[in-house]
Amino acid sequence: MQIRKQIAVIGGGTGTSVVLSGLKQYQDMCDLTAIVAVSDSGGSTGRLRDEFGFLPVGDLRQCLAALASGKHQQLVRDLLLYRFEKGNGLQGHNLGNLILTALEDLAETPAQAIEQASNIFRIKGRVFPVSEDTVDLEIHYQSGKRLVGEHSLDDPANGGQKITQIKLNPPTKIYHKAASAIKEADLIILGPGDLYASLLPNTLANGFVKALATNKGKFVYVVNLMTHYAQTHNYTAKDHLLEVEKYTGRKPDFVIINNGNIPKSLVREYEKAKEYQVIDDLSEDNYQVIRADLVSKVKVQQLANDLVPRSLLRHDSKKLAQVIINLL
Amino acid sequence: MQIRKQIAVIGGGTGTSVVLSGLKQYQDMCDLTAIVAVSDSGGSTGRLRDEFGFLPVGDLRQCLAALASGKHQQLVRDLLLYRFEKGNGLQGHNLGNLILTALEDLAETPAQAIEQASNIFRIKGRVFPVSEDTVDLEIHYQSGKRLVGEHSLDDPANGGQKITQIKLNPPTKIYHKAASAIKEADLIILGPGDLYASLLPNTLANGFVKALATNKGKFVYVVNLMTHYAQTHNYTAKDHLLEVEKYTGRKPDFVIINNGNIPKSLVREYEKAKEYQVIDDLSEDNYQVIRADLVSKVKVQQLANDLVPRSLLRHDSKKLAQVIINLL
Repeated sequence: MQIRKQIAVIGGGTGTSVVLSGLKQYQDMCDLTAIVAVSDSGGSTGRLRDEFGFLPVGDLRQCLAALASGKHQQLVRDLLLYRFEKGNGLQGHNLGNLILTALEDLAETPAQAIEQASNIFRIKGRVFPVSEDTVDLEIHYQSGKRLVGEHSLDDPANGGQKITQIKLNPPTKIYHKAASAIKEADLIILGPGDLYASLLPNTLANGFVKALATNKGKFVYVVNLMTHYAQTHNYTAKDHLLEVEKYTGRKPDFVIINNGNIPKSLVREYEKAKEYQVIDDLSEDNYQVIRADLVSKVKVQQLANDLVPRSLLRHDSKKLAQVIINLL
Repeated sequence: MQIRKQIAVIGGGTGTSVVLSGLKQYQDMCDLTAIVAVSDSGGSTGRLRDEFGFLPVGDLRQCLAALASGKHQQLVRDLLLYRFEKGNGLQGHNLGNLILTALEDLAETPAQAIEQASNIFRIKGRVFPVSEDTVDLEIHYQSGKRLVGEHSLDDPANGGQKITQIKLNPPTKIYHKAASAIKEADLIILGPGDLYASLLPNTLANGFVKALATNKGKFVYVVNLMTHYAQTHNYTAKDHLLEVEKYTGRKPDFVIINNGNIPKSLVREYEKAKEYQVIDDLSEDNYQVIRADLVSKVKVQQLANDLVPRSLLRHDSKKLAQVIINLL
């Protein structure tokens, strides 16, 4: 009997849900665990967090939606991702966020609420918050400026500045089941996703670095397609990688980077926001670089009532999953 | 092989969900179909109806919650009935109402939305809107006054007046699956519930009276425990029954009425709102009267943020179901 492989996907937000959607097709051979940052403070999630004081729900919701299984998976996905386009106080809220908020209110712990959502909606795989505490992200810039709130990292007004450090306030410890999943994984995937908003905040939970150091599996970093003006302005692939090493305390075994063509019309769209293709300046150096065409051909529309900007360009979930599965 | 019995429960609101919760225990021997009035315009439902223009969702939600099945039924019930106690624009909304609103937006027809909710939440039994059109209830009083909107029937300001007629505006036809369920049922249960707000509006959908006349099963009316100041002030049991006969065009085969004791403290609570125990003046007259202790011992709390008044006193779902099942 073949032993099932354990895959931990670390992040939050759209990039992580793309990885999960792709890997979902391989659940006959592997168990998936998503570990999700909980320092989110923007959009529908931010409003709910302010009003209810619960763990931020948006990234958790996206991961749950990505892992919906069974006959009604598309419907569950549509339901969890549904966005109200009108309604006093409802407009801009995601239904999945409201469902998780209700479950957080009903449950004894945030992790229990997510487990209950997984049961109700037949989620295959596990979704864990990296910690069970609601915390703020502190962003320190080279200029000495300090901002509080992960939503600052979506604001172009804060763009073009070098981020020197992010911290969690107050400090928090890793959720014990997230730590176990990291320790025991055969494969750990970090990225793609917003570097300072979705990926690295996970590493700041006390115990994360130790869990990753203990892990005997393969650690994989997936480089973003584009720079992000308010986070990684002018970062090359190596710049991304150095930050990953700094925060995780571990060199990835594999770095996956796109070498496929990005449609010119999209490149021009991003250029308007001072965002550019991440330059591949990676050289083999204790890690292996995997280059592949990973660009999704599906164009994502910005919704008129989106409370936060969305990336128009995405990794193709199937192509990316294929590359990842080959590493098992 | 014993043929499974078909039971249709007609109404909407709490009374109907009490009947369904009780009959749910007998689903090994019968199939349940709830047929629900859709002229509701009050509370969370009314707000959503105004803002989205969809079929009113509150009564449908209550019936779905009552029919939740399987390992997670209590959780699904809690989720669908969850009421937001804070949040700008969220306060007072039921999560189940928001879920049904989203599904109405995603689905092609309101009935499809309810079917999808049934699939997602593992509802055992069927829930049908009596019609697929959003309509207003028109209430005509003896004084010549006319009010529009089912919510008027919850307003004590309209209390103590004799209602001479209710109508739907615009007229609407019965949903074809609701009509079939009524025609084919072995047992049809009307009530308990708000006479003019939840029960009789069903009968106004074109085709309802004909479907009921065609039915060869038993037709059962369950009399309310208390009068309702804004609907059935000073109505005796016979007054209720005469209205049922007038609107349904059919004499019930059985009339179920409580003869159990209602706690004095609750009676006094109701008296403050000019509401009283329904006097049993029924005499056998082509129908059979079934008298039993049907009072629930569970005291229902009025919630501080309820948008509509709730009854403090309820039928006991198990006792009522036992009486109903004996009629099969």
